[in-house]
Amino acid sequence: MKYLYLALGLLAISPIYSQSILLKWEAVAPGVWKAVVGQPESIHLLGVAGINPKTQVLNKLGERNFPELQKSAVYEIFDHKVYLRFPLEEKEQLYGLGLNFKSVRQRGTVKTLHVDHYGGRDDGRTHAPVPFYVSDQGYGILINSARYLTVYAGTGVRKDSPNPPEEKDRNTRKDWDANPYSDAVEVLVPATGTEVFLFAGNTPLEVVQRYNLYTGGGVLPPLWGLGFTHRTPTLFTDKDVLNEVEEFEKKGYPLSFVGLEPGWQSHAYPNSFVWDQGRFPDPASFIKRLLEKNIRVNLWLNPYASTKSPVYKDLIPHAASHTVWVGVVPDFHVPTARELYKKLFNEQHLSVGVSGYKIDETDGYDTWLWPDVTRFPSGFSAEQIRQTYGLQIQKMTADWFRERNQRTYGLSRASNAGASALPYVIYNDYYNHRDFITALCNSSFIGVLWTPEARSSATSEEWLRRMQAVCLSPMAMLNAWADGTKPWSFPEVAEAVKEVMLLRMQLLPYLYTTFAQYHFEGKPPVRAMPLNDDGQFFEKDIRDQFFLGEYLLVAPFFAGERSRQVVLPKGKWYDFYTGALAGENQIIEVHQSTPGPIPLYVKEGGFIPMIPPQLFPPKKNESLPLIIRYYGTQPSQGNLYDDDGETFDYEKGQYSWSELKAKKDPNGQWRGTIATPSGKPFRYVDIQWEWMVK
Amino acid sequence: MKYLYLALGLLAISPIYSQSILLKWEAVAPGVWKAVVGQPESIHLLGVAGINPKTQVLNKLGERNFPELQKSAVYEIFDHKVYLRFPLEEKEQLYGLGLNFKSVRQRGTVKTLHVDHYGGRDDGRTHAPVPFYVSDQGYGILINSARYLTVYAGTGVRKDSPNPPEEKDRNTRKDWDANPYSDAVEVLVPATGTEVFLFAGNTPLEVVQRYNLYTGGGVLPPLWGLGFTHRTPTLFTDKDVLNEVEEFEKKGYPLSFVGLEPGWQSHAYPNSFVWDQGRFPDPASFIKRLLEKNIRVNLWLNPYASTKSPVYKDLIPHAASHTVWVGVVPDFHVPTARELYKKLFNEQHLSVGVSGYKIDETDGYDTWLWPDVTRFPSGFSAEQIRQTYGLQIQKMTADWFRERNQRTYGLSRASNAGASALPYVIYNDYYNHRDFITALCNSSFIGVLWTPEARSSATSEEWLRRMQAVCLSPMAMLNAWADGTKPWSFPEVAEAVKEVMLLRMQLLPYLYTTFAQYHFEGKPPVRAMPLNDDGQFFEKDIRDQFFLGEYLLVAPFFAGERSRQVVLPKGKWYDFYTGALAGENQIIEVHQSTPGPIPLYVKEGGFIPMIPPQLFPPKKNESLPLIIRYYGTQPSQGNLYDDDGETFDYEKGQYSWSELKAKKDPNGQWRGTIATPSGKPFRYVDIQWEWMVK
Repeated sequence: MKYLYLALGLLAISPIYSQSILLKWEAVAPGVWKAVVGQPESIHLLGVAGINPKTQVLNKLGERNFPELQKSAVYEIFDHKVYLRFPLEEKEQLYGLGLNFKSVRQRGTVKTLHVDHYGGRDDGRTHAPVPFYVSDQGYGILINSARYLTVYAGTGVRKDSPNPPEEKDRNTRKDWDANPYSDAVEVLVPATGTEVFLFAGNTPLEVVQRYNLYTGGGVLPPLWGLGFTHRTPTLFTDKDVLNEVEEFEKKGYPLSFVGLEPGWQSHAYPNSFVWDQGRFPDPASFIKRLLEKNIRVNLWLNPYASTKSPVYKDLIPHAASHTVWVGVVPDFHVPTARELYKKLFNEQHLSVGVSGYKIDETDGYDTWLWPDVTRFPSGFSAEQIRQTYGLQIQKMTADWFRERNQRTYGLSRASNAGASALPYVIYNDYYNHRDFITALCNSSFIGVLWTPEARSSATSEEWLRRMQAVCLSPMAMLNAWADGTKPWSFPEVAEAVKEVMLLRMQLLPYLYTTFAQYHFEGKPPVRAMPLNDDGQFFEKDIRDQFFLGEYLLVAPFFAGERSRQVVLPKGKWYDFYTGALAGENQIIEVHQSTPGPIPLYVKEGGFIPMIPPQLFPPKKNESLPLIIRYYGTQPSQGNLYDDDGETFDYEKGQYSWSELKAKKDPNGQWRGTIATPSGKPFRYVDIQWEWMVK
Repeated sequence: MKYLYLALGLLAISPIYSQSILLKWEAVAPGVWKAVVGQPESIHLLGVAGINPKTQVLNKLGERNFPELQKSAVYEIFDHKVYLRFPLEEKEQLYGLGLNFKSVRQRGTVKTLHVDHYGGRDDGRTHAPVPFYVSDQGYGILINSARYLTVYAGTGVRKDSPNPPEEKDRNTRKDWDANPYSDAVEVLVPATGTEVFLFAGNTPLEVVQRYNLYTGGGVLPPLWGLGFTHRTPTLFTDKDVLNEVEEFEKKGYPLSFVGLEPGWQSHAYPNSFVWDQGRFPDPASFIKRLLEKNIRVNLWLNPYASTKSPVYKDLIPHAASHTVWVGVVPDFHVPTARELYKKLFNEQHLSVGVSGYKIDETDGYDTWLWPDVTRFPSGFSAEQIRQTYGLQIQKMTADWFRERNQRTYGLSRASNAGASALPYVIYNDYYNHRDFITALCNSSFIGVLWTPEARSSATSEEWLRRMQAVCLSPMAMLNAWADGTKPWSFPEVAEAVKEVMLLRMQLLPYLYTTFAQYHFEGKPPVRAMPLNDDGQFFEKDIRDQFFLGEYLLVAPFFAGERSRQVVLPKGKWYDFYTGALAGENQIIEVHQSTPGPIPLYVKEGGFIPMIPPQLFPPKKNESLPLIIRYYGTQPSQGNLYDDDGETFDYEKGQYSWSELKAKKDPNGQWRGTIATPSGKPFRYVDIQWEWMVK
């Protein structure tokens, strides 16, 4: 059938098909192909992201065959737009298409991919409307366009379809279907050209790996970025913040970096970008005080400049025609605008020790942001800028830190394709806990990171459940900017919250290795269930559990639940806390009569390297004791990553992959060995092994 | 300030403004101006609607000044799009912008006007996304484009605004506003040209009048169309329908026309368009039986053709590339496609006495309708066809009936600008009663009709409230296609429902005169509160009451309410039922301890011409007794319209406007006189007057 289809594409037998042209694919890396349609625009997603493909790793990953059916993918150019058509197998599932909050499977949906604040529907308007979908048939498609793309992910039915759905009389057929089977994904690109990329892979995970590697390999955050972060109330003074930090220590809650919200600025919404002399008279020594405990400082801002800002006057000619909250909107495609920000931000922030930014309101809403009739000095359209603004600011600010050979790890509310290597985590103002976890699943297909931040809760149980989930996410954050909450705000669960926060710290070696796999191998740290190692397909659309790294399976409880189902993939899975066998390729029911720890499972053969509980992130090259938990009944081997934790020296080879081995000796005793390359950074001392499976 | 603004437009002082060009307005009728921007497209809304401006009446309505501020309206053409900018006064309210369901006031909103099934948000996706807004400053703007227009109705703020909002520091200012004041409406037209129309008027009502008159004057339905209509369950046979009709008569419930749902066809979803031989073996005599009681028949259909349809084979080359529910999508811009439908529909329907159609699913959803990558033989884009398909089918089918000198009155789920003269009422699948009434209000600004149809209800109270409201709307309809409900389905309210259904029939002379005013004067039959005669402005956004014609004010109760507020405009208002004074330019509280009649108020000086309760619509030229209710304490005069009620002979002058006068004789007794032009159609005999105000 696919050949007939291909033939149709070639032979152009109908007046419709006569306008369809086969995509011409050229290999750009092993398992990665590109097709150029019409005249692609000078601004596009991967260009703004400034990707730097990891060619060596892609070569190591090796060649793959071009998926047969996609040889019949076609395009048309009509009405100043590109029409794309990618055939679908009858049984094929699709994932991705942006940071969705309610669904993981995307076949049968229609989306207009548009950077916006998530509005409660998976309609394409979201913080990262990445035009990339992953098929479980071993490929993924990326449309590299900075336009509002409309994607019909298997909804359209052509009258000349070679395999059309059956026509049914609704009057008499109970099985009449309002959404009949569709044999293609169709995409409308409102521009006269675009690049299209195809990433192959034996499993969805391998497809995602290639996407992440091609877009630069995943970000490797600084080690401190993987600790716990607390964002303080907006009008806190330096003393308020220092007191809060002291309270964390006194009460025994860990803290890696604090976030300062709008009040740190002399003027915000729009922004002055300079410290408020009243609340923060001496930023340098304030930050120095925190650095003594190795606690970093992150600054909130949005990019819109106030008349009170030093950049204001010089920025005007390089800004958009329209404002946001009366703030001037810089056009960062103009070098002068970039330089103005770089100079001021270096003076005010980076040079006094600021570790990173939370970049707010680059996403939406339409009633807040500049309208699409806005003009930008660079000559790019408001639409193109809207789709790439968050991405561009991520790249620009990341480069400032890179120039200081200093890693950053911050927050952004807007992103897009090509962001894998950028040191930012997406967050938003939406607050549905279940949907937050579904977003975590979806982030794994599209090369972005997401945090289900905790802000406040109606009950102590909800607080515990939110704090547990966020502590097993890419950024463990309490955002108290508006509510003034603290980890111990709900006394009944204060201890349980402390436990999971300390567990987060204990897991640092595992988490760091997990992110190293993201960076060096393209494997996302959080993985939705379809991104399992075997490419196993699950009958149901699983939205409430995810893998964290190579070995962990996280199944959060939600407030009000006393039991939940957990889908265990193929292979044995063990309880993280006890080592007890949980099951194997089955659905189990987990009960908690009273809210307990967050259910965590470890795969057979899994190594979980941990450190003792600690309150602050390890300093550069600081030595740490290591406990390696092993979960398995069979011998296995794994890896442990390390480097200085703060600089980019790992790009010059200053890192170590240690090989972990677990096997039984002749007496049937488990023995663990760790082999570390000599002369490379390795911070761990007196290593102990824990054999979890009895 | 406005002059400075104008100057800016002219002098082009900024690089942004240098691209802005003033709109060049030319008068096309008294109080109506047109501006042509770039190269307008060959397909546009008013063209598809086939409007026929009522020039004579527009001349009679007279000249108006061009609104001063709009002289500085500008446009740009950039990125293959037209950018439009219309200045706003600081205190200016906007209405219209499509059939909205939740809000009447539209300033401060952003909409992408897109024909679609209403999805629960006033975001521009609706059944009639008419790109027309009415300002309370005495003008209205229409963008005559068949594209998905994005309208920023007072949200954008330019950095070079001559009257910008104040910049505020959110850290310290409690009055910080996320939506600062904007001084313009901005519109993005994704095409390189469009026509823009400006309609002036001393009041919003006069603006709407000019819009309706320019687009052909409002529709004058056949008299039977203003009775009560019942849509029978989808699989009903001819006998089932006849039995149901008999039940209506036996129980004393009026009935004007019945609607047959999909089951009348041999194959539906997609459609054969031919009668089902099993359920309707002899359509002609079935319809004849109903016509004996002057009951008409309306047929449901959607335009998508089944392989089982006689038109199928010949239609294929003139159909779209994509199907809807596997049905072929005709391109009605191709004459052959139009002729195929006209021939079959005449043979099958019109020639056997069918009175009209219910045209379904021309609106959405995106997952149902053809995708925007669909190609049409006419060469128009899927976007252009989507915006005009419902409009085009209304016009096409209306012309079929016109050729027979027979008026029709049907249902359509999609419409757009220019529809005022088309004999169709919009309906949908949404079912929020309050929102249904808000839609009724909004329909009045944009030249469309809407019915808040009753389908089913959770309680008898809800049933009564829904039936009451729909009986005071442009089409009094019970749609039982899926639920099999009947007016008497809830015994507790069966009598109250009968009362309001009979009231509907009694009001026929008033309703018919009201629609004549729509046709001859452009005054909408239903009017939102801002469309009062005096242009009075109300402090609150009134969404739950409306005017019906010149004298009636309708304030529906909603299920669960025991009291509601009613806003009474300037002038005395009397209770319709008792004639008691209700109030004057005030907000009154209406109480009903148990659900009673729908609150109706009559304006001082109001004539309500009525007939005795009757079960069936009057036949052509059938004589009727007339009761004229007068509500007032002062002398007054009004009008009563009549014609044959069925044909287009009124266009050749075969109609009458009778002058009604009420004044007191020397003895202080009220006397009523009616003056009818001789030799014109006038069906009323033994006229009685009721002096309602004691």
